[in-house]
Amino acid sequence: MPRLVMKFGGTSVADLARIEAAAERVKREVERGYDVAVVVSAMSGKTNELVGWVRQTSALYDAREYDAVVSSGENVTAGLMALRLQAMGIDARSWQGWQVPVRTTSAHGAARIEAIETAALDARFADGVKVAVIAGFQGLSPENRITTLGRGGSDTTAVAFAAALNAERCDIYTDVDGVYTTDPRIESKARKLDKIAYEEMLELASLGAKVLQTRSVELAMRYKVRLQVLSSFEDKPGTLVCDEEEIMESKVVSGVAFQRDEAKLTLVSVADRPGIAAAIFGPLAEAGVNVDMIVQNISEEGRTDMTFSCPVDDVLRAQTALEAARDSGAFEYQELVVDTGVAKVSIVGIGMRSHAGVAQKMFRALADEGVNIKVITTSEIKVSVLIDRKYLELAVQALHDAFELEKAT
Amino acid sequence: MPRLVMKFGGTSVADLARIEAAAERVKREVERGYDVAVVVSAMSGKTNELVGWVRQTSALYDAREYDAVVSSGENVTAGLMALRLQAMGIDARSWQGWQVPVRTTSAHGAARIEAIETAALDARFADGVKVAVIAGFQGLSPENRITTLGRGGSDTTAVAFAAALNAERCDIYTDVDGVYTTDPRIESKARKLDKIAYEEMLELASLGAKVLQTRSVELAMRYKVRLQVLSSFEDKPGTLVCDEEEIMESKVVSGVAFQRDEAKLTLVSVADRPGIAAAIFGPLAEAGVNVDMIVQNISEEGRTDMTFSCPVDDVLRAQTALEAARDSGAFEYQELVVDTGVAKVSIVGIGMRSHAGVAQKMFRALADEGVNIKVITTSEIKVSVLIDRKYLELAVQALHDAFELEKAT
Repeated sequence: MPRLVMKFGGTSVADLARIEAAAERVKREVERGYDVAVVVSAMSGKTNELVGWVRQTSALYDAREYDAVVSSGENVTAGLMALRLQAMGIDARSWQGWQVPVRTTSAHGAARIEAIETAALDARFADGVKVAVIAGFQGLSPENRITTLGRGGSDTTAVAFAAALNAERCDIYTDVDGVYTTDPRIESKARKLDKIAYEEMLELASLGAKVLQTRSVELAMRYKVRLQVLSSFEDKPGTLVCDEEEIMESKVVSGVAFQRDEAKLTLVSVADRPGIAAAIFGPLAEAGVNVDMIVQNISEEGRTDMTFSCPVDDVLRAQTALEAARDSGAFEYQELVVDTGVAKVSIVGIGMRSHAGVAQKMFRALADEGVNIKVITTSEIKVSVLIDRKYLELAVQALHDAFELEKAT
Repeated sequence: MPRLVMKFGGTSVADLARIEAAAERVKREVERGYDVAVVVSAMSGKTNELVGWVRQTSALYDAREYDAVVSSGENVTAGLMALRLQAMGIDARSWQGWQVPVRTTSAHGAARIEAIETAALDARFADGVKVAVIAGFQGLSPENRITTLGRGGSDTTAVAFAAALNAERCDIYTDVDGVYTTDPRIESKARKLDKIAYEEMLELASLGAKVLQTRSVELAMRYKVRLQVLSSFEDKPGTLVCDEEEIMESKVVSGVAFQRDEAKLTLVSVADRPGIAAAIFGPLAEAGVNVDMIVQNISEEGRTDMTFSCPVDDVLRAQTALEAARDSGAFEYQELVVDTGVAKVSIVGIGMRSHAGVAQKMFRALADEGVNIKVITTSEIKVSVLIDRKYLELAVQALHDAFELEKAT
């Protein structure tokens, strides 16, 4: 039998009625001839409730106990889903992470899947059990303790099972109906993409289109798992995340991503010597600052300006870490200039690789609207700029228009 | 180190504040020098919520999935309790049933503990971990599925661990402060017992004083586990359930138990032949009727009257089963007389074994109040009567007075 993985997020199993609706979708795929592994999240709100209890109980909590508590939400959904499928006449059973088992590292709260032992599952499929309902987000450590994969980890569970079971596709049911060219709340002409390459999805996800957990996309890319993002609330196709070879004709730019609440920090007049970057960004990493863009200006008389961006929420930690490093004599600087009023806008597309002039077209479109660019970084399939936050909507709309993203290929 | 088992029921871990209060009690015992196994129930209301979801999802539910779902409540409490203890500076960790493991039969929903493998726990205690927090009510089947022990099963978990760990005592914390001579809501002079024998507790529990799950008392008796019932809401000793040898001086009667909603059924003029009792009570057992007292009157001309009692809720099923058996030709009777207006009152005490005239004293006390006795049964340590329900309070008070139960020994 061909196999399919279907993953339902929290809003798609929010209550018994939603679980029933999800079970109907599973039934349809079984009737199409698939053996199905259904991966479920906790009912929406449940994980937050459990996390809240853990934090209230102990400020500096033991991550092993955190995992034992918060993993229980998925177990409840898995059992209820199996029961609902049975009531519809489908042979189904639930599996908790330790039962499969899903072997992970011991990094509690953020464990990585190392192996999925599918022998027991394979045997059940061979016996004619059509559906294995799997509690997402959890696994088993070498020490026989329950682990969790970090928030959103059920996506990763789903992709890992799709790879291990050699599934034809991994369908991720959620509360959005696919991946858009940009956020429709900002640009009403935003269009749903039929297909998107793994690399593009990774750039879009890490840049703010938080439809899929980034690690799940990385895993899908590595194991060539065809991922479909679709809505459990509507009955229509979603967006297929796949290898670029499967995308016959693609636009130069696929989407416009953005991050609203960025900050730009500049260390003015740093000594330009070998190792200075490591001296600066080491302490920032240790302080947990998510440094994104980094730009070093041309050196003059042995001094340079070092500029980087990070989320606004990280600014205080960044300032503290830099000042501590300076006080300890690690490096010197004349001044730390902080601008908390910026946003990041990016264009993303695998077509850029083979097209020149894409960045130029982006800068022109922004200039035409009078938007000043503060920092630029580029990669093979992405160009990002920092701009004043007040121009964010204007910039996104201008770029969406300039690259004609409202038109299908 | 001496070991102690402490079990906290649902109301004793109802919320984070109650879990903290319970943890304080555990800490006190650790400071007294004990290694402690803490057995926890689900937060009150949680199991009912989960059971409700299962029933709404599937009327004829798969008991294996039921167990997978409802066992999750205890896992949450166990993790939170371990976290709370850690926050108080006590080395503690949680254990789910499959981790210990607690090996049970495959009778899902009503499994029996077959063995508790304590090697891992023993190793942790030897390493200096002072507290093992154990999710009650659950175990692992030979098929690697989660089982549950039936409602109230956490008491049984606690006693089984006390036996397996060779604990000095098993303290059952609940929302009552001990075992009383009778229900204080009916007899204000009811007195809390300091000690009670296992046998007496079994009679009291099955007769209506539902403080402890009956199976847990049976298990405690078999393995000579000293059980203490006490309140988690007050700071005072409870009632010790122990071997009668530990009770130096005991009264002839320890308590007055009752069951309010009983029914009395009489099959009039049944053929008195060998096997007639089996023919009658077989179908009743199959129909799930909880038959309690059985009395057969003297036979006349080959016919007899057969009287039995059962809960009022079972009467309809009993009638249906008896009529079906008659229609199938299993036996005949002239009439089925049903009286749904009776109650059962019992006096219980191990002292009865060596004292004559106890039943006579009971009948006299009831007669003095004008209470008519409808059925009588006796055992070594118990005398029970059926009376009209309207006399229940009067009868309980009269018997409490007659045996001077308000006075301590």
